[in-house]
Amino acid sequence: MTEDEIIAALRPLTKGIGDDAALWQPSRSHRSAISSDMLVEGVDFTRAAMTLEDAGWRAMAANVSDLAATGARPVLATVALGLPPAFTVAEVQRLYGGLAACAADAKLSIVGGDLSRSDALTIAITVVGEVRASDAKSRGGGRPGDVLAVTGALGAARAGLELTRGSWPIGDALEAAALHAFRRPQARVAEGRFLGASRNVAAMMDLSDGLSADLDRLCVASSCGAMLESVPVAEPARALSAARSEDPQRFALAGGEDFELLVAVRPRAFDYLAGRYAARFGRALHRVGILRRGSGMEWNGAPLERSGWDHFAEEKSSRLGG
Amino acid sequence: MTEDEIIAALRPLTKGIGDDAALWQPSRSHRSAISSDMLVEGVDFTRAAMTLEDAGWRAMAANVSDLAATGARPVLATVALGLPPAFTVAEVQRLYGGLAACAADAKLSIVGGDLSRSDALTIAITVVGEVRASDAKSRGGGRPGDVLAVTGALGAARAGLELTRGSWPIGDALEAAALHAFRRPQARVAEGRFLGASRNVAAMMDLSDGLSADLDRLCVASSCGAMLESVPVAEPARALSAARSEDPQRFALAGGEDFELLVAVRPRAFDYLAGRYAARFGRALHRVGILRRGSGMEWNGAPLERSGWDHFAEEKSSRLGG
Repeated sequence: MTEDEIIAALRPLTKGIGDDAALWQPSRSHRSAISSDMLVEGVDFTRAAMTLEDAGWRAMAANVSDLAATGARPVLATVALGLPPAFTVAEVQRLYGGLAACAADAKLSIVGGDLSRSDALTIAITVVGEVRASDAKSRGGGRPGDVLAVTGALGAARAGLELTRGSWPIGDALEAAALHAFRRPQARVAEGRFLGASRNVAAMMDLSDGLSADLDRLCVASSCGAMLESVPVAEPARALSAARSEDPQRFALAGGEDFELLVAVRPRAFDYLAGRYAARFGRALHRVGILRRGSGMEWNGAPLERSGWDHFAEEKSSRLGG
Repeated sequence: MTEDEIIAALRPLTKGIGDDAALWQPSRSHRSAISSDMLVEGVDFTRAAMTLEDAGWRAMAANVSDLAATGARPVLATVALGLPPAFTVAEVQRLYGGLAACAADAKLSIVGGDLSRSDALTIAITVVGEVRASDAKSRGGGRPGDVLAVTGALGAARAGLELTRGSWPIGDALEAAALHAFRRPQARVAEGRFLGASRNVAAMMDLSDGLSADLDRLCVASSCGAMLESVPVAEPARALSAARSEDPQRFALAGGEDFELLVAVRPRAFDYLAGRYAARFGRALHRVGILRRGSGMEWNGAPLERSGWDHFAEEKSSRLGG
């Protein structure tokens, strides 16, 4: 197959692939937001644990989640692929099918990209969104006393990963839910825009590497410490940790790629915001702790170490698919 | 080394690395333009042929060139890196130094990125620029009769590549010029903006895979054929092909990564435009042929086959560094 043949096969799924650059008219009243992410087979995902459609969906969802974390609306994406020598056009189409399905779900267009060879399948995505300057959030706005909250229960994606590696008796329904959370994660775009529009949300980020790793980053960016109080655990994670006699909150704390959002909320506004959030989304905005002076994280009165994923650390914990 | 340590080391070179997404205020009177590119060590470049600074410069230049091909002004870039396990923080800094030097030369900011592990060093860059809607060019606007022209002589980068692989007596000055063209290519941003602003430039693209491969793409996009008349050959390419008893124009036709621009110009306006171009840039706008009805390329009355690089074709010709 030639590069131009692959591009011809993908043309129906994309708008501008094959051109030097794609053009768009940005909103005149908004800031533009951009984020890039690279996923490498064998490091960030394995084909043993998911289909190529799933790999495409997850890669796009991870990028869309970065926009959600800023409070932005997704607009477009570019996709650069490094394809192994044995990859077929049909396989590229399956991968692209997952990318395009997630893009459609997030209401963004794939406008261009690039193809190269690589020993390990490599997916590099850039997403562009837009957000009102007054609504844009970062990790750095938290203050001591702010309430920490997450947009959903955690650990389901990690449970799904574990279930691709071994078998535990948690029942068909919870197993299916866990695998779906792992293979087809949902970026919290509507939730991010809702929370971004609140002046009482001081800081926001998405949970991609696990609450303990990502909260540590929010703390550093906000020059605060944190006291964790409790971690909302997703049902599949609760069942799986019970089946393995593990502490369910610790299991969920170290689980990556839930793609829920973590926010720091001004304390006097939290109850009101959580009520509006529940009315709007039919789910709780879960309080997980508070920011405090100083640095570092505490849980149950003891220091909490980061337990999430790091690509470059000597010791690794569970990264989904890795 | 940990991901956060690398990010801390790179922070002085970038604006937003470590945040979920970077924000900017797009121009209200322009379209935004975006392009993405992935370079993989061993496929698109080798460290035997260049330093890490060079690899970074070339990767950024290739992306900036895609913006130049649209007539856009570069604004920002994101950089996602897949780093081999043995890579050190100092090596990341050298690579980033080249990326940042080329970005500064093109007056764009690196606003964010991502880090992952990869067996082969992988550099995925996305650039964003802006261009007036009326100035934006694509490959698809050419018509039969349009004059084909390039912004500079060709083949110097290929000569540089060949000189990293073997030795030919072309003299120190030409050897240095060839190696510089190969390792520190210059995207034609000012030229692209000048040509984009002319209503008589009907189509534009950059020469990344060699004139014969890229002209074929312009022909397909413009639903035309092309008659090549002559190829302007850069001095180092002329000297090297003479030393090897090769046809200098064929040598230059198949040479990639010159990053000159290829334009199709309305025939009655060509002489006037070429005069203005020469006055502005002190270099010729070289006429290389014309577009004609039909399809395919001709040279000296015979069909011309594509001889450039294709990542996926069974038979490859010379790709720079590959």
